[in-house]
Amino acid sequence: MIKVGVVGYGTIGKRIVDASIDTGFKIAIAVRRYTPKLDVAIEKNYPLYSMTGEIGLDVSGDFDDFVRDCDVIVDCTSKNIPVENFPRYKNVKVIVEGGEKHSLTNFSFSSLGNYEEGVNKDKARVVSCNTTSLVRTLTPLKDRIDNVFVTLIRRSVDPWDIKGGPVNAIAPVLKVPSHHGPDLNTILPDINIQTMAVKVPTTLAHLHVVRVKLKEEMKREDLKDMFENTPRIKILSGYKSTADVMEHFRDLGRKRCDMYEVVVFEESINVESGKAYWIHVVHQESIVIPENIDCIKAMFGEKDKWKAIYETDRTLGMEKKKECYK
Amino acid sequence: MIKVGVVGYGTIGKRIVDASIDTGFKIAIAVRRYTPKLDVAIEKNYPLYSMTGEIGLDVSGDFDDFVRDCDVIVDCTSKNIPVENFPRYKNVKVIVEGGEKHSLTNFSFSSLGNYEEGVNKDKARVVSCNTTSLVRTLTPLKDRIDNVFVTLIRRSVDPWDIKGGPVNAIAPVLKVPSHHGPDLNTILPDINIQTMAVKVPTTLAHLHVVRVKLKEEMKREDLKDMFENTPRIKILSGYKSTADVMEHFRDLGRKRCDMYEVVVFEESINVESGKAYWIHVVHQESIVIPENIDCIKAMFGEKDKWKAIYETDRTLGMEKKKECYK
Amino acid sequence: MIKVGVVGYGTIGKRIVDASIDTGFKIAIAVRRYTPKLDVAIEKNYPLYSMTGEIGLDVSGDFDDFVRDCDVIVDCTSKNIPVENFPRYKNVKVIVEGGEKHSLTNFSFSSLGNYEEGVNKDKARVVSCNTTSLVRTLTPLKDRIDNVFVTLIRRSVDPWDIKGGPVNAIAPVLKVPSHHGPDLNTILPDINIQTMAVKVPTTLAHLHVVRVKLKEEMKREDLKDMFENTPRIKILSGYKSTADVMEHFRDLGRKRCDMYEVVVFEESINVESGKAYWIHVVHQESIVIPENIDCIKAMFGEKDKWKAIYETDRTLGMEKKKECYK
Amino acid sequence: MIKVGVVGYGTIGKRIVDASIDTGFKIAIAVRRYTPKLDVAIEKNYPLYSMTGEIGLDVSGDFDDFVRDCDVIVDCTSKNIPVENFPRYKNVKVIVEGGEKHSLTNFSFSSLGNYEEGVNKDKARVVSCNTTSLVRTLTPLKDRIDNVFVTLIRRSVDPWDIKGGPVNAIAPVLKVPSHHGPDLNTILPDINIQTMAVKVPTTLAHLHVVRVKLKEEMKREDLKDMFENTPRIKILSGYKSTADVMEHFRDLGRKRCDMYEVVVFEESINVESGKAYWIHVVHQESIVIPENIDCIKAMFGEKDKWKAIYETDRTLGMEKKKECYK
Repeated sequence: MIKVGVVGYGTIGKRIVDASIDTGFKIAIAVRRYTPKLDVAIEKNYPLYSMTGEIGLDVSGDFDDFVRDCDVIVDCTSKNIPVENFPRYKNVKVIVEGGEKHSLTNFSFSSLGNYEEGVNKDKARVVSCNTTSLVRTLTPLKDRIDNVFVTLIRRSVDPWDIKGGPVNAIAPVLKVPSHHGPDLNTILPDINIQTMAVKVPTTLAHLHVVRVKLKEEMKREDLKDMFENTPRIKILSGYKSTADVMEHFRDLGRKRCDMYEVVVFEESINVESGKAYWIHVVHQESIVIPENIDCIKAMFGEKDKWKAIYETDRTLGMEKKKECYK
Repeated sequence: MIKVGVVGYGTIGKRIVDASIDTGFKIAIAVRRYTPKLDVAIEKNYPLYSMTGEIGLDVSGDFDDFVRDCDVIVDCTSKNIPVENFPRYKNVKVIVEGGEKHSLTNFSFSSLGNYEEGVNKDKARVVSCNTTSLVRTLTPLKDRIDNVFVTLIRRSVDPWDIKGGPVNAIAPVLKVPSHHGPDLNTILPDINIQTMAVKVPTTLAHLHVVRVKLKEEMKREDLKDMFENTPRIKILSGYKSTADVMEHFRDLGRKRCDMYEVVVFEESINVESGKAYWIHVVHQESIVIPENIDCIKAMFGEKDKWKAIYETDRTLGMEKKKECYK
Repeated sequence: MIKVGVVGYGTIGKRIVDASIDTGFKIAIAVRRYTPKLDVAIEKNYPLYSMTGEIGLDVSGDFDDFVRDCDVIVDCTSKNIPVENFPRYKNVKVIVEGGEKHSLTNFSFSSLGNYEEGVNKDKARVVSCNTTSLVRTLTPLKDRIDNVFVTLIRRSVDPWDIKGGPVNAIAPVLKVPSHHGPDLNTILPDINIQTMAVKVPTTLAHLHVVRVKLKEEMKREDLKDMFENTPRIKILSGYKSTADVMEHFRDLGRKRCDMYEVVVFEESINVESGKAYWIHVVHQESIVIPENIDCIKAMFGEKDKWKAIYETDRTLGMEKKKECYK
Repeated sequence: MIKVGVVGYGTIGKRIVDASIDTGFKIAIAVRRYTPKLDVAIEKNYPLYSMTGEIGLDVSGDFDDFVRDCDVIVDCTSKNIPVENFPRYKNVKVIVEGGEKHSLTNFSFSSLGNYEEGVNKDKARVVSCNTTSLVRTLTPLKDRIDNVFVTLIRRSVDPWDIKGGPVNAIAPVLKVPSHHGPDLNTILPDINIQTMAVKVPTTLAHLHVVRVKLKEEMKREDLKDMFENTPRIKILSGYKSTADVMEHFRDLGRKRCDMYEVVVFEESINVESGKAYWIHVVHQESIVIPENIDCIKAMFGEKDKWKAIYETDRTLGMEKKKECYK
């Protein structure tokens, strides 16, 4: 039974813990100090390890114990902290998240794009929420793409965060094009993509405005069918914003109201004069969770990409018809 | 088996449906038209009735059928619509929500305050989210109160709503004092209370700043103990805002991240010079759900107040130690 | 001396009144009723006319008097109201704003794009804030454009408005491409443009992410020079968001902090592989004011486009070097 | 001619520069580095001094030169920086702002409350925006007050600030009562006041909900008259929020749309059962500017309180009838 060690119990960490348990992995959690975010983990008696000595909690060991006890570590600490932790990860497989540089692991992973390359790897970076959403929607189209232009409208902070802004402004990324395009190329190197990004005062989700120049004409219905037959893409009709989309997942009873799928507004799908357009919604808190679980499966030798993905989707309550997994 | 007919499948309606099913009631839903909000209800095959003829859905009947088929109707439509529906509610018990006037039913209900009066009633109004929170926190103190002054800082709209504002302003209720004080007196007529209210640009929860002039001095610890031993009040320590409070309930795995309890910030509880102070958080979407379930129980003859409340709390996953229920 | 009759004293109306006075026009104002928005106009003794009989104000006449007394009417009422008012505008020139359809006047005006066509016209529509900004930035480039793709990130409501939302969501325009592209073609019919739009929770300004496919390569510096030498475009360096951009105009002492210019973030200007990119900011409350003043000048026979524009810019305190006006 | 040295050219600093010039003082500005905020000051050739050596600007000297060249220094740097600067202020009068502790200067100033005590002082702290508003509204009532309870609903960040939050939450000050009450007592020591505060996601203005227990009954009309006859209080009728209140000041043509007055919503003024209630709005960016100018006048020997205040009000365009100044 694989033991997954999660470092940092924040937005991503706590979700990987829950998904790992649901998958049948054992788990351990390493933290730097007590904060109220740990209350539920403590109540559930999850095994905790201290990265910083005595922290006033009943722990199973220190950071070296943690590394020794785990089979794979998923480092979910804030941007640039994993690079500091890295030298301590000896004799253990390691996953870092999309905030880190590709060069830290020299391998970036995203299930639909390059699952096969992850098999038996020792180090991997699971790409960011924004890149994950683009891997999912662009992979089925990839042979038809001349070039892609995406405007990313990013939420400012996560719902629990009261420190960051903006409160009443639009803040663009002024490096044009932005870094999001090149990041996609770590997974799908052949796609010609440019991206621009802005940050806006909302907490719920990112939204992408996508324009694809096609190599040759195609039909709107074919594009819609492609999305419908691709795992981890959900088309919703009649929805108007990130707010009612997220509410739908509350109603579905998803834990923490998570939306692992990238959601495409049906009405936004269009093909016109050789260009395809659509708008999709990215739940920054949870979209990468299935890819993290898949990555662990691959790193521990599961060679069957579609079996891995299908089972992860079933575990998380998001599976499509079996024919979609091929 | 009681059959609960819910009119309107919005914020309150959908939650009453779910809680009713969990309680063991049968349910039926009456709606005016299809909207995407119904998607999950349709998927789950809940019995739907049309209030307006043909609505493109597979329905179990019209509004008269609905009234005939149900034992009690909970009308969760928007403010002032229930009064229009009222003449059609013949030979059936009826509950309306706190947006309606007390005079519509001539009886207002809130479990901790006046459960007993609800027993075998035919019509009841379950008071609003704001009033419910005040009934809960003031009831244990009620014999010690000289007067109460509350400032209500209200969320502007629910999370799914993109139509209402304000986006970047504070909008006070200029009728001073506001109507919230008198509304409490429909449940606790002897409390001398004044309230003032403002609306602010957030969707998560209301927050109340409470100041109670006491008849005689008491200790902070006693106030804290009172809250700790009262059902449906939860004290959280180390939390800083409505955002991390709501995140705690996401982590608890509550459906839709609901927070049925009124949450008091531990650090805000204070008693000084004969005045008690605290700050509590009110989840406008879900706080009245347990009171609605209790109200149904009372209306159908359950005389044991604490049994009714305790069982509702267990059903909703929020029960305290049994000693608190007396 | 031209007498300008402004219908509606809201966001646009009050600014046209002020700019008209500064230009040396006489003014009159027609309103439907008293609201506090009129307080300053009343205090300044501006001539008011009632569109609806007795309104509790000291007025100079009714709507027919108003039409008779004015040389040109600028109808600044809400979308779709001008079409109702139109039959009453007899023997008077009329301007409507960009919310109205092109077909109402069969002529759309925007100074840099088609001033000449406005000369001696009797009816005109001054295009919307979004279109105005695109006319300004695309006109100098127009012979080099293969195609244009713009993502419009729109403010949700004006700063004074507390009714509209969203408060915490991103709401896309789901008709893809949006109507903004075709609207530009009423002024610049030869530009191949597609647009997509979203609404976000901020009040300050719209922001456009622009990508232009060029017919042939050009240099970043040349693009920057073009913007620098075009009236009504301002390049700002070191600014990060719509918030510090608008603050700059507060510091400049502009009345109401208005920003008549379209502002381009210098750092966002880029040319790469035959595509030009930039991000610009649009002050929805004031950007069309200079174009409205120019339009009046044209309608009353001023044939010298650059003289008209230059003088408007001087009146509004935004003139560039004289060489830019040609 | 008094030379006012302003340290820090942010929200308060830039306004004190402008008001000082309008008053007839000479000015100088000391800054730590270039930021785009200085663009307008540079354009206007204001004398700049560097606090940190070479900063790429044409400066009139270093920090010691600055101190030597000025008659009074107004230190408008961020909280806790003035205490570090203090040892360098030799042979010069000094004013700090309300973010600093009373103990730094051992004298706190607010014009309506204690102008006289400021005469010929060498060091003073001008109290914060929130305290200033309460000094103004409570001073005329002060002999009638039994006790005061205020809930402060604070804007989260200033309009130009994109870093701070919350974006979608209410964040209370959990120290109950908050520090705002004791701060008022540095000016009006005899008022029994308690305050509680929350931060909300808006940038425009703070809003206070005030409840005063009176020693004896009074009439609503008398309270309204008191406010009407007190300088620097403005009553507005028909307004609904901080948004339309601020818009009124945009329409008045105030530089930067500043609102030096505390604005009371007329409809909120009430007296009932021995308690007075009202709601007022505080423009955090500008309300303390007149008090700073008065403070300079007092420190340089102007003994006539009402003359000083009246003239400041005229300079800033906010004077009331002369009878109010006594």
